[in-house]
Amino acid sequence: MTGKDSYDTMSGKRDLVMKDKVVHLGLFGLGTVGGGVIELLSRKKGKDHHKFVLEKIAVKHLDKKRPVPVPLYRLTADPREILADPKIDTVVEVMGGIDPAKEIILEALKRGKNVITANKALLAQAGSEIFKQALDSGCYLGVRASNIAAYRLIESLISSPFQFEKLIGIFNGTCNYILTEMEKKGEDFSPILKKAQEIGYAEQNPSDDIDGYDTAHKLIVLLGLALGYFPPLDSLFIEGIRRISHQDIIFAKELGYRIKLLAIAKREASELEARVHPVLLPWGRGLARLDGIENGVELRDEVGVEIGMQAPGAGKYPAATAILEDLVSVARGRKLIYPQPKRYLAFKKMGEIKTKYYLRFNALDEAGVLAKISGILGDHNISIKSVLQKGENEKPPGVVPVIILTHRAREDDIQDALGKIDNLTIVRGKSLLIRVEQGIF
Amino acid sequence: MTGKDSYDTMSGKRDLVMKDKVVHLGLFGLGTVGGGVIELLSRKKGKDHHKFVLEKIAVKHLDKKRPVPVPLYRLTADPREILADPKIDTVVEVMGGIDPAKEIILEALKRGKNVITANKALLAQAGSEIFKQALDSGCYLGVRASNIAAYRLIESLISSPFQFEKLIGIFNGTCNYILTEMEKKGEDFSPILKKAQEIGYAEQNPSDDIDGYDTAHKLIVLLGLALGYFPPLDSLFIEGIRRISHQDIIFAKELGYRIKLLAIAKREASELEARVHPVLLPWGRGLARLDGIENGVELRDEVGVEIGMQAPGAGKYPAATAILEDLVSVARGRKLIYPQPKRYLAFKKMGEIKTKYYLRFNALDEAGVLAKISGILGDHNISIKSVLQKGENEKPPGVVPVIILTHRAREDDIQDALGKIDNLTIVRGKSLLIRVEQGIF
Repeated sequence: MTGKDSYDTMSGKRDLVMKDKVVHLGLFGLGTVGGGVIELLSRKKGKDHHKFVLEKIAVKHLDKKRPVPVPLYRLTADPREILADPKIDTVVEVMGGIDPAKEIILEALKRGKNVITANKALLAQAGSEIFKQALDSGCYLGVRASNIAAYRLIESLISSPFQFEKLIGIFNGTCNYILTEMEKKGEDFSPILKKAQEIGYAEQNPSDDIDGYDTAHKLIVLLGLALGYFPPLDSLFIEGIRRISHQDIIFAKELGYRIKLLAIAKREASELEARVHPVLLPWGRGLARLDGIENGVELRDEVGVEIGMQAPGAGKYPAATAILEDLVSVARGRKLIYPQPKRYLAFKKMGEIKTKYYLRFNALDEAGVLAKISGILGDHNISIKSVLQKGENEKPPGVVPVIILTHRAREDDIQDALGKIDNLTIVRGKSLLIRVEQGIF
Repeated sequence: MTGKDSYDTMSGKRDLVMKDKVVHLGLFGLGTVGGGVIELLSRKKGKDHHKFVLEKIAVKHLDKKRPVPVPLYRLTADPREILADPKIDTVVEVMGGIDPAKEIILEALKRGKNVITANKALLAQAGSEIFKQALDSGCYLGVRASNIAAYRLIESLISSPFQFEKLIGIFNGTCNYILTEMEKKGEDFSPILKKAQEIGYAEQNPSDDIDGYDTAHKLIVLLGLALGYFPPLDSLFIEGIRRISHQDIIFAKELGYRIKLLAIAKREASELEARVHPVLLPWGRGLARLDGIENGVELRDEVGVEIGMQAPGAGKYPAATAILEDLVSVARGRKLIYPQPKRYLAFKKMGEIKTKYYLRFNALDEAGVLAKISGILGDHNISIKSVLQKGENEKPPGVVPVIILTHRAREDDIQDALGKIDNLTIVRGKSLLIRVEQGIF
């Protein structure tokens, strides 16, 4: 057998490939991602033998400037024009927001149209309802673009008969960009955020990204796919990156770590931990290596299998690419793989989690400070792994940062201890804690 | 919305889940993996709402001792008893070898039975024919167990509309075990192989594993799934681990690397590199971290997405787990995702590849040796990155290892230079080269 021969044998399949149906598309939203989808569709790359016809595009304002040239007669300001068009068998929703995206998606499914959506906020809120409607209607529901850090693993996550044990991810390009720039430029959070806003890497109202909500939505979607039910947002502990200083990044590096905003889910027996907050990750491998707008995810399951994905984060292409993969699934006639409802897991209380901690105190530069702080930590069953005491460039003068890395401790104990330490007269301002996490890869 | 509510909503799906069909199984082969499948099927874990009935097991010798208790009336020595049984809708082939596995698989497919196989040697040889038959018969063909280093990624690999650019993997638990033990115990290849044979981690005839053929078969299967045609074995460069010494492992470590047997495939324009050989991988991340019988794979595609998987290598569970995932796919009524024939890629000649090299020479312990060796390397456009010269524990006396790490060079140039260096009177024995590779994660 030669390579050529085996290719010829295989080409017996071309007939089957050619039978893939033509997909007639309606697009809701023509922003960055919508433009990327149109661009990808107009290129050969990745489409193989499939044919996609973009029939209509629903936009808010007909006269807005478009990221790609679009024939005017394809545009409509009325979503019903797409929903009511029997020729359109598949809709792509990239308008974002809850209303009217939710009604549009549910209505499209009810009318028997396949739906592909990038809308993580909506899926996090109404994933169960939307999946149920897709199942009832027998339609394909593609959600790969809702988490571009994980989209190649979504099928495996849904269909694996084994439960995940640990899932960690960097899901927000804006935060990862800001943290990377703080490290590179040696500047603090606020000026870097401002620059990120200027070049379009952060929104004018950045809270959704930098306070961790976007990351939390994406975590909820993955949990929904893995568990068969979508946990409510308020069952997650969510903390953003506003309090991280350039100093912390330097100190973390000295200790062998990098600071990242991480989504974390851990399953132990019938308990689930789900949280979003900055962490210290060991330097140089896995997610800790991701720079700028890169995204990534790592998972371990109950049989010890570990899978991971890393993707070039924000911008139009990653999301458009994920949408194209769902479109190819539609063209190939793939059935919806639906998440299977698994046993309901109780949420572990945040106060009960156990991990290692990085603590930063701003203390007066005088003898006995460390003794007092470590005494309080000891009283709360917190043992110290290492200490960094810095004296240079004191701002304000006379006050120095004291960094403590702890062994594993209980969150409640840490919070109690910090409360007491913050009340000491030798400590200025609110202390900072960053949890330490281990990567999988 | 609370977590409880969303679970209740989701449970509307239970009806659909329950409709998953009962799968009636025939099993070919009852060795380690076959026993593992039976064990997993008899446990709740991972099966969710599915039902699998093991109807019949075909074995070579009816009176052999079995790894798990099996009712005698389930056993048959006649494969036709399974093939001709209309009740059996799905067969699992874990007998291995080409004959009669090939005929059994093709016949089962012709009779409309789904097939799940772990047989990488067979798929590497006849993958095109078997996939074509599955397509013609409209049957599911599950091949996850043929590469347990990559099985969670197989669906993504087949269905992604984007081409891979680089794929590297540790696919052979025996080799990885031997290399890890050589490192841990400080012993050479032969005594460690002997111990591995004693505890069953290496076959009595170990060539398939340690000479790289098993790794090559698994690489061919992945390439077949990604490219749509299965490259012939003789288009791959294949080299095993017999010549690696304990010394090399020590020297590599000193230079910041770990020695692993790697499967490598790279795609550049319309050219394909596919090879299996020992490599130096940078210490401490990704595949370089895998110990003992662990397996793993890393892929990067043309849109920059990177995915990886690591699994607890050999033994019954990993393969049985992969088979169970395919069984669940059958139970859920999933259609075969078939590899789509892509453009035929020409194989890059091994002499034309470019990489960095680790070179070990056994040279006389005298002045001018390094000058002569580096002179010949320079004449062949090979520039040196670093040199290690060792003087202690000379074996034979007067002969010392000289280790050279090169910058990127062309394979043909390296081979020519080594030929000339090996002819020098100051060099004893055949020099060793190990190629250097970069991990993805």
